[in-house]
Amino acid sequence: MAEEVMNNKQIILKHYVEGYPKESDMEFKNNNIKLNVPEGSNVVVLKNLYLSCDPYMRSRMSKLEGSYVQSFTPGSPITGCGVAKVLKSGDSNFQEGDLVWGMTGWEEYSIVTATQSAQFKIHDKNVPLSYYTGILGMPGMTAYVGFYEICSPKKGETVFVSAASGAVVSIRYFPNGIDIYFENVGGKMLDAVLVNMKLRGRIAVCGMISQYNLEKTEGVHNLFCLITKRIRMEGFLVSDHYHLYPKYLEMIIPQIKGGNVVYVEDIAEGLENAPKALVGLFYGRNVGKQVVMVSRE
Amino acid sequence: MAEEVMNNKQIILKHYVEGYPKESDMEFKNNNIKLNVPEGSNVVVLKNLYLSCDPYMRSRMSKLEGSYVQSFTPGSPITGCGVAKVLKSGDSNFQEGDLVWGMTGWEEYSIVTATQSAQFKIHDKNVPLSYYTGILGMPGMTAYVGFYEICSPKKGETVFVSAASGAVVSIRYFPNGIDIYFENVGGKMLDAVLVNMKLRGRIAVCGMISQYNLEKTEGVHNLFCLITKRIRMEGFLVSDHYHLYPKYLEMIIPQIKGGNVVYVEDIAEGLENAPKALVGLFYGRNVGKQVVMVSRE
Repeated sequence: MAEEVMNNKQIILKHYVEGYPKESDMEFKNNNIKLNVPEGSNVVVLKNLYLSCDPYMRSRMSKLEGSYVQSFTPGSPITGCGVAKVLKSGDSNFQEGDLVWGMTGWEEYSIVTATQSAQFKIHDKNVPLSYYTGILGMPGMTAYVGFYEICSPKKGETVFVSAASGAVVSIRYFPNGIDIYFENVGGKMLDAVLVNMKLRGRIAVCGMISQYNLEKTEGVHNLFCLITKRIRMEGFLVSDHYHLYPKYLEMIIPQIKGGNVVYVEDIAEGLENAPKALVGLFYGRNVGKQVVMVSRE
Repeated sequence: MAEEVMNNKQIILKHYVEGYPKESDMEFKNNNIKLNVPEGSNVVVLKNLYLSCDPYMRSRMSKLEGSYVQSFTPGSPITGCGVAKVLKSGDSNFQEGDLVWGMTGWEEYSIVTATQSAQFKIHDKNVPLSYYTGILGMPGMTAYVGFYEICSPKKGETVFVSAASGAVVSIRYFPNGIDIYFENVGGKMLDAVLVNMKLRGRIAVCGMISQYNLEKTEGVHNLFCLITKRIRMEGFLVSDHYHLYPKYLEMIIPQIKGGNVVYVEDIAEGLENAPKALVGLFYGRNVGKQVVMVSRE
């Protein structure tokens, strides 16, 4: 197989980050990459199309020990969920031309092993491909698992999903309290929700974005509500539940195609704009799911 | 029915309490009581034998709003779980001479309605009667429910039960982590346990005694562990589970009689010593379940 050396633009993490991330914590670099599969290797060569900006990525910018995610490596490209096209494959489950989503690099081309990077083949292409970074990918599955598997919703129950955008105020829209809380924020938000939960409420703990940039986390003061209201609070990681992904797609794709689910994206064009898009998440600059388009195809 | 007026010694809450309770927050008083059941009433006249001192009683000494328990009434006797003998009954389910446990007053005689005060008839008297304030009563049922119903223990799992007596140190005895945590303490204890929980650990939240005397509760900082370790944390009230009481007794009484369960009591003799016994709970003065003996029979 002839060696094909290509120019590969990358977003590099310069150093571990403290406090809020800044664009200057990352740099845009040109490197070369050999787009070949070494003899006997099962790697897959990807051309990255869309990259996902997700809040959990902030914690990977810190030096982590014993966490459920690994730190990024300073001097190396940032990694995250993305949609890509298979250019070459040493893995018999994937073929040239396949579209996949999974963990990839913030760069034009990535070489991964499909199992380690948890690549899912994209079968339905009659939806925007970028959706597989969000509603049809990891974030969508996370919502599905947290809501259906962890919270067991019943008809008529009130559901509150927190977001980083200072939504404590929105709790006032639940005059009769909250049955199900999908926790993404932590800290003061959790405290405010706890006093507004209803008897036998359920809290799926997915993330605590308000705490990721703090050197010392805020304390949560109202946990006694767990007792008085018999609340169940459960943390989960979507990666434990991917066996449910086909079931999820079967449910959600018709909803999207039928127009029952409206999905909003905020797409930054060009890899060079990825640092700004990621940083913007922590200032609530995005409207809709933040995606970076590296290449249309 | 002739009216029988008796002297009735009582422990009165003088006023709402702030911070740690003191003996001087209560007073020992003599009152009169008419030990009769009014015509057409379903009340039950109790002679109190044993009274239970329990941590949750601290919160009832404060002015509470919207809590799961009601405040004590300043100027009136303290109430709590106790073992009593039925002297007279207007309730067809109870008869003179029956022994019962349930909510009663901190006084020699109390007049209650059996349903409101949740009286349970004592059938097995071949165990010390005082046990029905503890292992065979509300606290025992609480442990049973929290452990078996909330935490679903599996063979070989490690279990940690926190107590108010500064047991953070004892977490060091779990070098491989904790599967099941029975939470009674809250605050810093919960934080210390969270980092020592194992994957998919369960926390039954029963109480948070370390917080009851604080004007502002301590914040809990390590809740992010719920996500990374997929921990389930659930609050419960024993009163939701009393339908399981016969099943519990069937399990526990043979264990006590067979000597497999050793139960330690700290019995204060005489109603006049009840305030001291209750206050002592919050300083860890008791060794074993704190009981007050009002009368042997």
